[in-house]
Amino acid sequence: MKIHTILSPQLFSLFAKDIANKQVLIIDILRATTSMVVMLENGAESVKPVAGVEEAMRLKNENPALLIAGERNGFKVDGFDFGNSPQEFTEEKVQGKSLVITTTNGTQALSLSLEASHIWVGGFLNMDALVKVIANTQKDVYLFCAGWKGHVNLEDTLFAGAVADALVKLGGVVSDDATRAAMGLWGIAQDDLQGFLSEASHVQRFQSMHAESDLDVCLKFNTSNKAVAYENGVLVAIPS
Amino acid sequence: MKIHTILSPQLFSLFAKDIANKQVLIIDILRATTSMVVMLENGAESVKPVAGVEEAMRLKNENPALLIAGERNGFKVDGFDFGNSPQEFTEEKVQGKSLVITTTNGTQALSLSLEASHIWVGGFLNMDALVKVIANTQKDVYLFCAGWKGHVNLEDTLFAGAVADALVKLGGVVSDDATRAAMGLWGIAQDDLQGFLSEASHVQRFQSMHAESDLDVCLKFNTSNKAVAYENGVLVAIPS
Repeated sequence: MKIHTILSPQLFSLFAKDIANKQVLIIDILRATTSMVVMLENGAESVKPVAGVEEAMRLKNENPALLIAGERNGFKVDGFDFGNSPQEFTEEKVQGKSLVITTTNGTQALSLSLEASHIWVGGFLNMDALVKVIANTQKDVYLFCAGWKGHVNLEDTLFAGAVADALVKLGGVVSDDATRAAMGLWGIAQDDLQGFLSEASHVQRFQSMHAESDLDVCLKFNTSNKAVAYENGVLVAIPS
Repeated sequence: MKIHTILSPQLFSLFAKDIANKQVLIIDILRATTSMVVMLENGAESVKPVAGVEEAMRLKNENPALLIAGERNGFKVDGFDFGNSPQEFTEEKVQGKSLVITTTNGTQALSLSLEASHIWVGGFLNMDALVKVIANTQKDVYLFCAGWKGHVNLEDTLFAGAVADALVKLGGVVSDDATRAAMGLWGIAQDDLQGFLSEASHVQRFQSMHAESDLDVCLKFNTSNKAVAYENGVLVAIPS
């Protein structure tokens, strides 16, 4: 199993031909893929990621029982039921509900990856479950960092490094310099992830948005034992 | 002085509007920007980088005294006087000569950067001289890694990290996660650069091309005290 890392959607075109029939892991730690896992962990009946605000609104108009979630530039979209904070998706609010989510970066990365045979979604909160399903699937894997508006960011890169590190221990083969870079950074950050990230652009943006408590949720390990897959247009929880 | 890092030409469009009237440092350690510095260090009268093989051939047809250098996919172009190994450009061969160079990645990054007010060129071999002129110029700087066919590579990223680290000590301000990542990697690689790079894609490509001795030239510090600038279509040595 070869391991590649796509450091931002802006680099995706270099890999577009390669991902067909392979595994892709979508990484948007702050906060899209973290929130998607929380929704399913807290009992959402279904979660559908869509690329645009308009599509989310249209689905809600067709089915008013749907709950729609999303942000643009980090803020909740007007008229939506939720923003993109993982803390909003409590069991009380999402259990048994059908949700739609659209985000700046995470759903974009997802929509680019449809040629893959397996699309996984998640973050630190379900890392062990993700590593297990990826290793079991055995196909080459592309760790796809959603980044921030095309830019490489530290938190997604670090998670790619963490997953690569775990997969190498299970026989995976590092296959590009981006993966080597991500693993190198993970090596220096892993003992103090929050400290290492304290200077990161996205973390500073969160602090300015008074959303620091989200960071704790997004950077905590293995609070969920569910891998999440994107299949037939919706996210599905796969217990490990 | 703000410090940004562009990890590959594929990411350049995110910065295209920002570089106007700023400084850009073009980094293609293996081997274009290293070779450009060697040419000037060894007394070339002028060095003109061009984007295409055809343009180099046309210039040579117009002026047969020109020496043309370049590679595609790492190999010397048929009919050229030189490939792209820094060891080819000896004092004996280049002193007083006018050279033209075209390479896969380095000249591409250069041609993207023409809106900048200052374009610097180099690598580990003239690092101190580059840091000095960049710090003296005081404008925001973009460390532009040429990468490999759009992909991020380790050696260019590490040099960006090394330069950023030196500029921070002179008052520069790290301004994006790509720079933070590059500096983090430089921190772990600096005590054993060749060892750290031994797994890198580009280094392995060199080993398969039997060009390992080029690595020593490209990874040695400060064998030249000349910063190199790109001005009016040609490279100019600026003694420090």
